Amino acid sequence: MAQNIYDDEQFFTAYGQLPRSSSGLDAAPEWPALRAMLPPLHGLRVVDLGSGPGWFCQWAATAGAEQVLGIDLSEKMLATAREHTAHPQVSYERQDLDALVLPPLAFDVAYCSLTLHYLTDLPRLLTVVAQAVVPGGVFVCSLEHPVFTAPSSAAFVVDGDGDATWPLDRYFDEGPRITDWLAPGVVKQHRTLTTYVTGLLDAGFALTSLVEWGPSSADLAAHPDWAAEAERPAFLLLGATRLP
Amino acid sequence: MAQNIYDDEQFFTAYGQLPRSSSGLDAAPEWPALRAMLPPLHGLRVVDLGSGPGWFCQWAATAGAEQVLGIDLSEKMLATAREHTAHPQVSYERQDLDALVLPPLAFDVAYCSLTLHYLTDLPRLLTVVAQAVVPGGVFVCSLEHPVFTAPSSAAFVVDGDGDATWPLDRYFDEGPRITDWLAPGVVKQHRTLTTYVTGLLDAGFALTSLVEWGPSSADLAAHPDWAAEAERPAFLLLGATRLP
Repeated sequence: MAQNIYDDEQFFTAYGQLPRSSSGLDAAPEWPALRAMLPPLHGLRVVDLGSGPGWFCQWAATAGAEQVLGIDLSEKMLATAREHTAHPQVSYERQDLDALVLPPLAFDVAYCSLTLHYLTDLPRLLTVVAQAVVPGGVFVCSLEHPVFTAPSSAAFVVDGDGDATWPLDRYFDEGPRITDWLAPGVVKQHRTLTTYVTGLLDAGFALTSLVEWGPSSADLAAHPDWAAEAERPAFLLLGATRLP
Repeated sequence: MAQNIYDDEQFFTAYGQLPRSSSGLDAAPEWPALRAMLPPLHGLRVVDLGSGPGWFCQWAATAGAEQVLGIDLSEKMLATAREHTAHPQVSYERQDLDALVLPPLAFDVAYCSLTLHYLTDLPRLLTVVAQAVVPGGVFVCSLEHPVFTAPSSAAFVVDGDGDATWPLDRYFDEGPRITDWLAPGVVKQHRTLTTYVTGLLDAGFALTSLVEWGPSSADLAAHPDWAAEAERPAFLLLGATRLP
C-alpha cells in the first residue's frame, strides 16, 4: 500500500500552500508540456489517478469531457476536490492506487500527475490502466525524474563560485527514499527511467512522448530563482497510446 | 562534420588498447543488452554506422547476415577493420555520418554503437537511417548517457568516506563538451534523453527498448572496481522499429 502522507496534517497544510495546490494547473511549470500530450477531451471519458485537489478533473470537465473520475487515497484531498467542483460529470472515489480496481475498457484517457513515484507496485498499476483504457486510448503521466529521486542527498551542492551541481548517486539502487519534504518521513520510490519506459511498453502501450522538464528561457526570465532547475531534470513526462 | 578524432595518432593508439577495441564485443559490458535488442540476423542486410575496428560487422557475418556494410570516418579504423575481416559479405566504406548517404530501403537492420554523441546533426542522421531501413526493420543504438555527457566536470566526486557522487550539471545545456579522454580536445555532443527519444519518434520509429546500462551483481562480483558505475548511468541503449 502507498503511504498516505497527504492525510498527515502537517503535510496537507504545507502542500495546500504550494502554488500548484492553491492556484491550479497554470502554477505547475510542467503543465503546458503535459497538456500538449493530451488529445482534445471533448466527449471523452477520463480518469485521473491521484487527483489531489481536483484541478485537472475540473479542467477536463471544462474541456468538455463526458465523464471524469478522480481517484485519490487521501480523504483530505478528496474533500478539497469535492468542495471545488461544480461539474456534474465529475465524480471522486477513494482508492489506494497500489490496489487500484477499474472497470475494463471504461476510459479514453488516463492521467496521472506526480503520483507514480509514491506507488510500490508499478507493474500492477500499469496493467490495470492498460486494461481500463480502450485500444487507441491515451495514458499521460508525470513523475519525479529518476535523476531527482535517486540521490542519497537530494539537494544541490553549491561551490564557492555559486555554481550548483546535483550529487547523483544510487541511480541503479531502486527502492524507497525517505525525504523530509513538507513533512518528515515522506517515502518516495526511486526507479530508473528504464523501469518506467519498459513498464509502459510491457503493459501494452506504445510510447508517443518523453519529455524531461527543464525551464525555458522565458521561464528563467520570469523566475530567475529557477536557474538551478536547468542543471538537472526534475520531472519526467510520458505520453503513451494503448496498442490494439 | 563530426570530429575525426579516431585518426589522431595518440587517440587511435589509446583506443586500440581499450578492452572493447582489442578483445571485441564480449569485452564491452553493455553488449549483452544491446545484442538482446537485435533480431536473428540470418539472411538480413545490416549496416553498422561507426563500425570502428569491425567487431560487430564480423559478428553479424558469423550470425548469417546476407550483407554487412560498415561505415566509418576514420581511415585508421577502416584499415584495422579490413585487416580483421575474412567474410566476403562484409564491406567497408568511408563516410562522415554527419553527411551520410544511404540507398533507400536497402537494410533490414541498422546498428550504431557509441557513435551518436560525436555527431553534430542528429535529426539528419535519424532521417537518413529511417529512409534506408525497410518498414518493420530495426534500428539499435548505444550512446553515452546524457547524464554522463552533461557535466562541466565529468568525474566522480569522492568524499572522505570513499562515497562517490556524480556532479551533474548543465543537463539542459545541449551542445559540445570537450574532454581529455584518451587524447586532449575530444569533442562530444551533449543532448538530453528527451532529444534522443523524440528524434527517433519524429523520424518514424517506434521505440521498442530503452535500457540504461548499469553493472549487475555478477558484473560487480567479477569487477569490484566497477562499483561507482552503479551510481549513475554511463550508457543508454535504444531499440526501435521502423513504422510502415
